Amino acid sequence: MTATTAQTLARRAATLDEASPVRGARALFDLPAGVVYLDGNSLGALPRAVPAALADAVTRQWGHDLVASWNTSDWWGLPGRVGDAIGRLLGAAPGQTVCGDSTTVSLYKAYLAAARLRPGRRVVVTDPGSFPTDLHVLGAAAEAGGLEVVTAAPGDVPEVLARRGGDVALVALSHLDYRTGELFDLPGLTAAAHAAGALALWDLCHTAGVVPARLDETGVDLAVGCGYKYLNGGPGAPSYLYAARRHHEELRNALPGWNGHAEPFAMEARYRAAAGIERMRTGTPPILSMLALEAALTVYERFTLEQARSASLTVTGLFAGFVDSLVPEVAVVTPPDDERRAAQVALRHPQAYGLVRALAAHGVVGDFRAPDVARFGFAPLYVRHADAVTAALTLRDVLDHDEHMSPAYATPSPRVT
Amino acid sequence: MTATTAQTLARRAATLDEASPVRGARALFDLPAGVVYLDGNSLGALPRAVPAALADAVTRQWGHDLVASWNTSDWWGLPGRVGDAIGRLLGAAPGQTVCGDSTTVSLYKAYLAAARLRPGRRVVVTDPGSFPTDLHVLGAAAEAGGLEVVTAAPGDVPEVLARRGGDVALVALSHLDYRTGELFDLPGLTAAAHAAGALALWDLCHTAGVVPARLDETGVDLAVGCGYKYLNGGPGAPSYLYAARRHHEELRNALPGWNGHAEPFAMEARYRAAAGIERMRTGTPPILSMLALEAALTVYERFTLEQARSASLTVTGLFAGFVDSLVPEVAVVTPPDDERRAAQVALRHPQAYGLVRALAAHGVVGDFRAPDVARFGFAPLYVRHADAVTAALTLRDVLDHDEHMSPAYATPSPRVT
Repeated sequence: MTATTAQTLARRAATLDEASPVRGARALFDLPAGVVYLDGNSLGALPRAVPAALADAVTRQWGHDLVASWNTSDWWGLPGRVGDAIGRLLGAAPGQTVCGDSTTVSLYKAYLAAARLRPGRRVVVTDPGSFPTDLHVLGAAAEAGGLEVVTAAPGDVPEVLARRGGDVALVALSHLDYRTGELFDLPGLTAAAHAAGALALWDLCHTAGVVPARLDETGVDLAVGCGYKYLNGGPGAPSYLYAARRHHEELRNALPGWNGHAEPFAMEARYRAAAGIERMRTGTPPILSMLALEAALTVYERFTLEQARSASLTVTGLFAGFVDSLVPEVAVVTPPDDERRAAQVALRHPQAYGLVRALAAHGVVGDFRAPDVARFGFAPLYVRHADAVTAALTLRDVLDHDEHMSPAYATPSPRVT
Repeated sequence: MTATTAQTLARRAATLDEASPVRGARALFDLPAGVVYLDGNSLGALPRAVPAALADAVTRQWGHDLVASWNTSDWWGLPGRVGDAIGRLLGAAPGQTVCGDSTTVSLYKAYLAAARLRPGRRVVVTDPGSFPTDLHVLGAAAEAGGLEVVTAAPGDVPEVLARRGGDVALVALSHLDYRTGELFDLPGLTAAAHAAGALALWDLCHTAGVVPARLDETGVDLAVGCGYKYLNGGPGAPSYLYAARRHHEELRNALPGWNGHAEPFAMEARYRAAAGIERMRTGTPPILSMLALEAALTVYERFTLEQARSASLTVTGLFAGFVDSLVPEVAVVTPPDDERRAAQVALRHPQAYGLVRALAAHGVVGDFRAPDVARFGFAPLYVRHADAVTAALTLRDVLDHDEHMSPAYATPSPRVT
């Protein structure tokens, strides 16, 4: 590749960045110099609003106001407040989303709550390619609730519904294939579940904050997702659980705790569920982590989800296009059409692990999924079109110099990415 | 009361503080001026080590090192590392305690894991006076696991075991009555459970950090507790779960997730439990909250649990004695003998709510439990004997001036305390 090609690409990216609907959003994040961070689909970058918010939480709210902060800083209302802030990004009206617990725990509650809304049916249909934790905890929920798990790829779900529809309580799917980055048809599969009399539950971990889910509009019944990917809530930020208002009265929490009691301070031995989505709360949530997430979400007060989605599509399209033309020995496995692509581009290559490591040595941070996938998350609020060009050119350079073949990268080592 | 009495009390407190085994510990905490904070049994005070640790976690680990911190700052190992630090305070050798999830969620996992270790038995015996969340989530665990819950006050547990011992899988109790502050006989009741072939599970929320539980020595099978009371981990700090090593091989996690998988990054659809206590992990835990807890625990590198226990007994004894002699119209409901008292002193009075509010107006912070209990937690690392005198004298003054009868305190309002 010539220097002219690189210059042409850089100019094109600069033009797109200049015209971007989220121009200036990157200034809301604190990113290290010299790094092209394409792993926001694993851990979102640090929003500049977080450090001060957390310092205030620790020093003033906890240190000075002490236990009174449960009231004076409304820590008690935090799960609902953060839930509503996330709900806005999911197309959910207030009062239907609550924050707390790990994603895995929220999934457990959501699976069993959904199944109990369809008491005459006992089949849960899910994708065998779901993120493993979804499958692990669904197995446990099935054991606890006497359910049968039937696996089918999203494309095969309609066929399963046609065959066993009368038995199906729930279709539980992820919005995105976490490896390939393929976006599934949330409205269509939700409608298919409903047509069979079943409910639809979506795992939004990999799309919340970058792809509109329009939960209320599409009639999704329950949804769960994490706070630490594109919502930028920090490592292990608590998850959220959405349940459509029409289900609240019948909604049961399989992990009932005092935080979800109708009168938590009456200290009753008998459990009485709180009204509304609050009944899905369990124990005392990690307030510091949740306050970090609350501060992180303020970036969406400046930029809308629709703007983020628009920028996301051009930047991922640009990167995928560059790779297709400049790096033909690597296969883009993420679908090219906008309707089937979120904010992640996945590449397949026999030395994918070496590629990810060699790119990281040049400051281009992606991640690896065994056996042969390199993933790149383009969090549109802080990854610019110029970064996509840098990433693609660096990938070309790495391959040209066989850096990915370094013996140091021969054996993938366990990494949380 | 004369000024001379007050002076005599102050001198006695000063002598005890001077000789205290935890002298100087208070300097490790950041407490607001003019406050006698007796609510560490609800939310522990802020250890001075926390703000800097959390600032580093946010700015360097998250902001600069980004996703690499899972390895470079060993976030992945944090649940076990914090678990071991707590385990030292519980008398547990390393590798048996893991941190994560809310207390309620940890209880759910502990109840079902215990019951599954005794497959031929289906009765769980618990105290009907347990903290409500323990009862709520035990009800749910019983439903999920096909168990029967039998309630008995701790003193009546031996009788239940004599009658139904062959059916009892588990005796699940709290170390302390959270209202009266009565400490139960952990070694004796554990031995009684074992004699009947059952397991013993203890909720240590109100004693960890102030009363030795000697888990390994007493043969306790499982234990759970929170991180935000005497461990000072901050609001909603994650909980911990202990399981004795002899059970690990058979231990099942009712909420299996990818963090507890034998090879989390193999991304296997099939769940294979990790070795040891790590198998009790579920989803990605709230790292920021857990790092605050880790920093908070460093105070125990300077002072031992035994020193804290010793100071705790003299300060609670002093306070209870003062109240007995100076404030006879208030009943001390916490047992006077050391073996049955932890770090909390509970008082009974018809206007307990008014007393708590009026004391708070004077900077003496306790809390109220309906209908008529005022609780005072004497976290021995930052509450001095002098504070106990101030609290008792303020209580006397409040009653002398009928401040607790103020119409503003007529109706208890919900408070998280």
